[in-house]
Amino acid sequence: MNITVIGIGLIGGSMALDLKSSSDKTKIIGVEANARNAQSAIDNGLVDTIRPLNEAIEDAELIVLAAPPDASLELLPTILDNIENQYVTDVCSVKTPLIKAIQNHPKRANYIAAHPMAGTEHSGPEASIYGLFDEKACIFCDTEQNSSPALQAVRNLYETLNMRIIQMDSESHDKHAAFVSHISHISSFALALTVLDKEQSEQNIFNLASGGFDSTVRLAKSAASMWRPVFELNRENILEVIDNYTAHLKNFREAIANTKSDEISELINESNKIKKVLK
Amino acid sequence: MNITVIGIGLIGGSMALDLKSSSDKTKIIGVEANARNAQSAIDNGLVDTIRPLNEAIEDAELIVLAAPPDASLELLPTILDNIENQYVTDVCSVKTPLIKAIQNHPKRANYIAAHPMAGTEHSGPEASIYGLFDEKACIFCDTEQNSSPALQAVRNLYETLNMRIIQMDSESHDKHAAFVSHISHISSFALALTVLDKEQSEQNIFNLASGGFDSTVRLAKSAASMWRPVFELNRENILEVIDNYTAHLKNFREAIANTKSDEISELINESNKIKKVLK
Repeated sequence: MNITVIGIGLIGGSMALDLKSSSDKTKIIGVEANARNAQSAIDNGLVDTIRPLNEAIEDAELIVLAAPPDASLELLPTILDNIENQYVTDVCSVKTPLIKAIQNHPKRANYIAAHPMAGTEHSGPEASIYGLFDEKACIFCDTEQNSSPALQAVRNLYETLNMRIIQMDSESHDKHAAFVSHISHISSFALALTVLDKEQSEQNIFNLASGGFDSTVRLAKSAASMWRPVFELNRENILEVIDNYTAHLKNFREAIANTKSDEISELINESNKIKKVLK
Repeated sequence: MNITVIGIGLIGGSMALDLKSSSDKTKIIGVEANARNAQSAIDNGLVDTIRPLNEAIEDAELIVLAAPPDASLELLPTILDNIENQYVTDVCSVKTPLIKAIQNHPKRANYIAAHPMAGTEHSGPEASIYGLFDEKACIFCDTEQNSSPALQAVRNLYETLNMRIIQMDSESHDKHAAFVSHISHISSFALALTVLDKEQSEQNIFNLASGGFDSTVRLAKSAASMWRPVFELNRENILEVIDNYTAHLKNFREAIANTKSDEISELINESNKIKKVLK
């Protein structure tokens, strides 16, 4: 089977690696606007070939749109304009704007809005790794608008990557994504800025930073090209979660400022409940 | 050599493990107020014996105070009252209040204020692991107040754990610690509370949380018994860093609310500079 992957970055590239290794019969056609990334995708064996968009659509049975969210939003209608019986899926962490953009498209039923919840703080084709999606969740949104064969084909795709498929309406998805993923990035970016501001000497941060700091700030390495559009496309949900988060910080601040020991302990004990849901 | 470790939790227990394995001649005398933890320390081979505080002080050449910060602050003067020629160090992540508490003590020169910057989100003797301190930084504060032999003995101790020793005045230490360690914990606690508030169903968090969420929220498992006193003892510095952090969050909020794309990208690009100082 030919599968076209549009956008060979961390997600598209890692998907291509796993799909190619899953079957000798799977050929990956890559579409990549950036010439250096296109060459890297070939040199690193991520794709079998790089082709222009229209040819790549024509020659594939399944199309995975793995471009950044703003590019995906722009490309999705064009892709649907050009398919016949092919099925299309995407990987964006914001779903409502994409679905709205093709709501009335005659090929709407062929597009499965998906969010494979996997990633690292690295980006680009060189960041691609095997097993990125293994045992992670993949959210399918608004599947009542899909045809059964389209849904089955895309389900097979993500199950080949060993993902757990969960179905949800797109508005719920975007709200949950703001809370369990997008805010983590904003919190890390802001933390990195706070420390960089204060610590004029990078050597100081390096000397003093321990494991805890590394892990909370790891996501601050994430690329603006990926996250700026996520924050814009999921704006309302993200503003809500920033406000909630800021309110909790303020509670900590007040309890500490007034040395309310019981209240500090209570806030920490309450937050410890996250243990139950983390590994 | 007999080394007394007061408080056999994650830090004291992990230190005991490495020190015992470094030499057959090193015996660890444990002091542990909690009977269950004391038994666990013996059962798990963390210490050679558990003894009352006064006997443990008398029979050791070196004393490591590894109790939570509030207990350490209370115990330190008593320990100095009871030593003769022994050397004492502690492991608190806040140094100024401890140093102030024994500033005029006749045995001041025997106490080396240290902060081995290592830890995990787990606590208690069962969380002890080998190699916790390996290649991490250990800050010594205000060492001009120490005698040379005391400094050398405690330097040897932390070098046995393969730590890099850095010297700093205690006020600078407490400020840096607020920025590179304490705020990471507050940020994680607040993030956990935000998500727990919103996601009534724990199953939802579990299903949706990906690696990024896990790592930013990992520290929210940390114990109140450890962190409440840190926040109280380092209050002024922590309030300053919370305010800086909140200001950066506000900048993100404003840029997102007003869809200022260039500004969002700039904030992210600026925070990416943390790459240079992280692994």
